[in-house]
Amino acid sequence: MTQEQLILQERPNGLPDENTFQFKKAEIGKPSEEELLLKTLYVSVDPYMRGRMSDGPSYAAPFEVGEPLKGAAVSQVVESNSSNFEKGDLVTGTLDFQEYNVVKNDKVRKVTTKGMSPSSALSVLGMPALTAYFGMMHIGEPKKGETVVVSGAAGAVGQIAGQLAKKEGARVVGIVGSEKKAAYITETLGLDAAVEYKKGNVSEQLKETCPDGIDVYYENVGGEISDAVWPLLNVFARVPVCGAISAYNLEEGEKDIGLRVQQFLIKSRVKMQGLLVGDFADHYDEAYQALEEAVSNGELKFEETIQEGFHSIPDAFLGLFSGDNIGKQLVKVADAE
Amino acid sequence: MTQEQLILQERPNGLPDENTFQFKKAEIGKPSEEELLLKTLYVSVDPYMRGRMSDGPSYAAPFEVGEPLKGAAVSQVVESNSSNFEKGDLVTGTLDFQEYNVVKNDKVRKVTTKGMSPSSALSVLGMPALTAYFGMMHIGEPKKGETVVVSGAAGAVGQIAGQLAKKEGARVVGIVGSEKKAAYITETLGLDAAVEYKKGNVSEQLKETCPDGIDVYYENVGGEISDAVWPLLNVFARVPVCGAISAYNLEEGEKDIGLRVQQFLIKSRVKMQGLLVGDFADHYDEAYQALEEAVSNGELKFEETIQEGFHSIPDAFLGLFSGDNIGKQLVKVADAE
Repeated sequence: MTQEQLILQERPNGLPDENTFQFKKAEIGKPSEEELLLKTLYVSVDPYMRGRMSDGPSYAAPFEVGEPLKGAAVSQVVESNSSNFEKGDLVTGTLDFQEYNVVKNDKVRKVTTKGMSPSSALSVLGMPALTAYFGMMHIGEPKKGETVVVSGAAGAVGQIAGQLAKKEGARVVGIVGSEKKAAYITETLGLDAAVEYKKGNVSEQLKETCPDGIDVYYENVGGEISDAVWPLLNVFARVPVCGAISAYNLEEGEKDIGLRVQQFLIKSRVKMQGLLVGDFADHYDEAYQALEEAVSNGELKFEETIQEGFHSIPDAFLGLFSGDNIGKQLVKVADAE
Repeated sequence: MTQEQLILQERPNGLPDENTFQFKKAEIGKPSEEELLLKTLYVSVDPYMRGRMSDGPSYAAPFEVGEPLKGAAVSQVVESNSSNFEKGDLVTGTLDFQEYNVVKNDKVRKVTTKGMSPSSALSVLGMPALTAYFGMMHIGEPKKGETVVVSGAAGAVGQIAGQLAKKEGARVVGIVGSEKKAAYITETLGLDAAVEYKKGNVSEQLKETCPDGIDVYYENVGGEISDAVWPLLNVFARVPVCGAISAYNLEEGEKDIGLRVQQFLIKSRVKMQGLLVGDFADHYDEAYQALEEAVSNGELKFEETIQEGFHSIPDAFLGLFSGDNIGKQLVKVADAE
């Protein structure tokens, strides 16, 4: 039996293109002792994967050229040689981007959908939501009455981060790239205001929507948008730095040049801290519990943008950089059985 | 009786010049109830004073045009109407830059010289040393075997910060602007290596002197020197941001443009935090105790560069920006009686 794989054909220089990706046929493996055969249902495409396509040093090992891309996925157990899993179980983990995976039983964990789509394990109960939780709650620490700004506010992480700050009683302003997204974050998510960066003069828009300055800036985008934030940071502001998507597709030798932050950090004694969800592994239980509770109370809303079919993965991935998605961008590969 | 005052004649645009400062004669005041008449012995000139010469928002209120500059000083009590002070006592506080000050008794505190020059209250037992202490010990938190880099390493704050990290068992590399300073920090202070930024290619020099990357970067200077540091930061590095002297004399409308830090903070999950000594007021006792102990054990060495005479204050201040001083730059105004 053969299946489709998505291979890294060559390392991109700048924005990935058709030469970056290649679809290939491969044999479906057979599970040995303590192994599982998994059928891929959903895969998650995330901006950080761009970093793994290059071979520079990063927090995650680079993808190998000629090998499948890897990422978060939800799969269904087709065959189990482990007493911990049964045929039909839904599981999640970091898996090769192919239609079937053979893995050791400790490479995945069971998904409890609680009445939601299995895809929720990749969105509101998955890595992006955990990232939002730790960045906002452990680094941002918003307080009642404070002003919180979230960039990429309609994205996978941003949509959760903004709502978590609202839940703490903060005034929350989201920065987004379209009118549709502005409507989503203010009307559906209940944030207090939206800044649409494509309308220009982000600095003026921020001054208008944040008349009392900014106490927490949840950073997802970097670039000129963030340059406009620094001068407005209040004394003892906190800046969790989760992403800088504007800088992920720089070409070789190109540098991310803009406003240096030091003077703003000194003037307002700001704490700015980079984060990676895995560093908070000891706190996953706390985060899952908080997120599940908030979802079931109706306090945490979320969107998923789902493209259909294994072959749409490259397109869904590239859409992240043009800002096509509202909420979590996923690809549905197959139906559960 | 008249005295000399140093007045802010006009706000500088860029580097201060002869029009910035003005010397003026003024009456010496008379102390009322609970007030003291103080004779200025030493004044401290510090880079942060440049910020107070402009009227933009900063952490300290701007100096008023036509009024005396203010800064840290050591003075001697000439006349006391307070039971807490006697004639002859040495005191320190933030005072007007003039030969005599009349102040309330709670504006100054007594200096205990412990056999050192009274000027030590402005250097190794004063604000610069406290700043070094809190930045290094409360934010940098160097550990045995880690690599610590200090910029402005031969300056008032840097000379203390580097030695505090050595005391914790770290390997310490200082960035300095001259061969003389390089010799000072390695031979006198005992740091492990020096990077001379004026020799060029700071990035290469840092890679050579920090083969295991950088765990703590104590930031005093900003600009291109710091741009070369970011790519070398190790996972979970800490960056206390104390100063950015390279950016203090930008002209109106000019911006501090360079390498954005976000990607480095994410990749290595770095914490970068601005600090101001006053925020740590609750911990002053702890810091004074640690500093006094280290000085008396011979573990903490320090230099003072002292210019003579009230009229040399502008020159001493401007020298900070050309990097003339080794250790703390002070001006001696008068001898103690």
